[in-house]
Amino acid sequence: MSAIPFPRGKTRELPFPDWMRTVQTRIEATLSRLLPPAEAIPARLHQAMRYASLNGGKRVRPLFAFAAGELTGGSPEKLEIVSSAVELIHAYSLVHDDLPCMDNDVLRRGRPTCHVEYDEPTALLVGDSLQSLAFELLARTDLGSESANSARQLEMVRLLAHASGSSGMAGGQAIDLGAVGNVLDQPELELMHALKTGALIRAAVMLGALCGETLSDEARESLDRFAKRAGLLFQVVDDILDCTVSTATLGKTAGKDAVDEKPTYVSLLGLERAREFADELGKQALDSLAIFGERGQRLIELTAFITHRKF
Amino acid sequence: MSAIPFPRGKTRELPFPDWMRTVQTRIEATLSRLLPPAEAIPARLHQAMRYASLNGGKRVRPLFAFAAGELTGGSPEKLEIVSSAVELIHAYSLVHDDLPCMDNDVLRRGRPTCHVEYDEPTALLVGDSLQSLAFELLARTDLGSESANSARQLEMVRLLAHASGSSGMAGGQAIDLGAVGNVLDQPELELMHALKTGALIRAAVMLGALCGETLSDEARESLDRFAKRAGLLFQVVDDILDCTVSTATLGKTAGKDAVDEKPTYVSLLGLERAREFADELGKQALDSLAIFGERGQRLIELTAFITHRKF
Repeated sequence: MSAIPFPRGKTRELPFPDWMRTVQTRIEATLSRLLPPAEAIPARLHQAMRYASLNGGKRVRPLFAFAAGELTGGSPEKLEIVSSAVELIHAYSLVHDDLPCMDNDVLRRGRPTCHVEYDEPTALLVGDSLQSLAFELLARTDLGSESANSARQLEMVRLLAHASGSSGMAGGQAIDLGAVGNVLDQPELELMHALKTGALIRAAVMLGALCGETLSDEARESLDRFAKRAGLLFQVVDDILDCTVSTATLGKTAGKDAVDEKPTYVSLLGLERAREFADELGKQALDSLAIFGERGQRLIELTAFITHRKF
Repeated sequence: MSAIPFPRGKTRELPFPDWMRTVQTRIEATLSRLLPPAEAIPARLHQAMRYASLNGGKRVRPLFAFAAGELTGGSPEKLEIVSSAVELIHAYSLVHDDLPCMDNDVLRRGRPTCHVEYDEPTALLVGDSLQSLAFELLARTDLGSESANSARQLEMVRLLAHASGSSGMAGGQAIDLGAVGNVLDQPELELMHALKTGALIRAAVMLGALCGETLSDEARESLDRFAKRAGLLFQVVDDILDCTVSTATLGKTAGKDAVDEKPTYVSLLGLERAREFADELGKQALDSLAIFGERGQRLIELTAFITHRKF
């Protein structure tokens, strides 16, 4: 995984690592502000929602949203809200995926999973409530006051709902369920990941871009092409890390895909070819950004980060 | 439960029983049209989503939405969509509530529950996907074309999301979880039900009214007061039916509240006083409709139906 250089300090403002930390800090603060207070009734549910959403995660989807927001000059205040909405959908999916009837996992972000720390019925309601909250955030009046903004916000709801449901993330999870113990070919595996991980990353990119100036149809298509490749890249790297990095480094149970007989890019292609495929996806993603020139710098840096990450 | 007469044939159009059947038929057809086709990938998930949403239920929330739509002259096409969105939230909540880690119920609407007919992980994803679809429907472009409508649709998303999440339906379910085996007093029981059942019925009423002319603040407050009382009435009658009617008639396991040591209005007040309380709620609900005159006729009839229902 060395074909893409890791650029730093090229943009007008912060170097990438500082920008990344800034976004992560903003998201943590925004989620903490927008989630119901821990003491609000029902307190146990609200504590568990905060446990499942705060203090952790790479915040990859918010990073994509903020980086895409730089293409169109979206305001940080709007980007905070849409990023939080996408991140809440991601957080809900982790809570439900970890449940005993699903992946039955006990460790997430280095801590006990939500149903272990609380209990199963609470974890179920946590996921359900985080999903509702995501859509409530996108419909907030402070996300836009003019009527043109209302149409934008509705488009965001439509995109995020579609990306979350049976034609998106949850649908990918269903294909994954049906695939355990089976051999998928590469197109089948790509469809599964395009839905399971890719759809939400695409939504993050599009929602981020929708926080600023309107993109031309051509630019929008290029951006969506980028998002599709970057989403798949993220998953391929995830598969590689699952079989090469320790549980302590990952913060979740390593090697679990193989134990669970889950189809992955590594099981399909072998480690070396999986790495080559990741490089190829990275190049394709960057090609799609050419149309944006300098404004695409954060997305370029983020793609490099996704490729080179070690956790 | 005889204080409220069951009016019929008083409105300009269909007698109430025919109107009710018409709404129920429309909702069945609309849900069937708006749910993903059973053969679309992932087919098993889509089949299970249709299994959990079609062929059953009294469609109480759509009835409330349509009846409220008559107050403001909402178009049937809009009412179909918002009613379907509310009904999908209700359907998702039933699927999740029936799961083994929750109520562990095997019978619903006279058929095996979703996780019995399919499996637990599929049922989990069915609930998650039905929730996403509900919000996708409210953001559909055919629900309104002008920008004023976009603001209305956003308000609907906000109302439905709030009613579904931790400050609404899911929050009520969390209070219910914590209450098993405990004695709640009447204010605590009312809060639980105001969230668990009441919030979604209020949302149904408000979304239905939002399909037509704008209500004055006073009318809106009256309507919300009606919806709160009617939602609680619905729950009290539910508690009464659970301990007085057979499983075959209910289409779900009867007497389960007592077995599960769940607090109900019957366990709190006794059967006779629970019936009196239902009568009182019905009268309060009807009082709130006085401001609407003739246009409130369907809501009056629906309140009577809710009170006198036998299943």
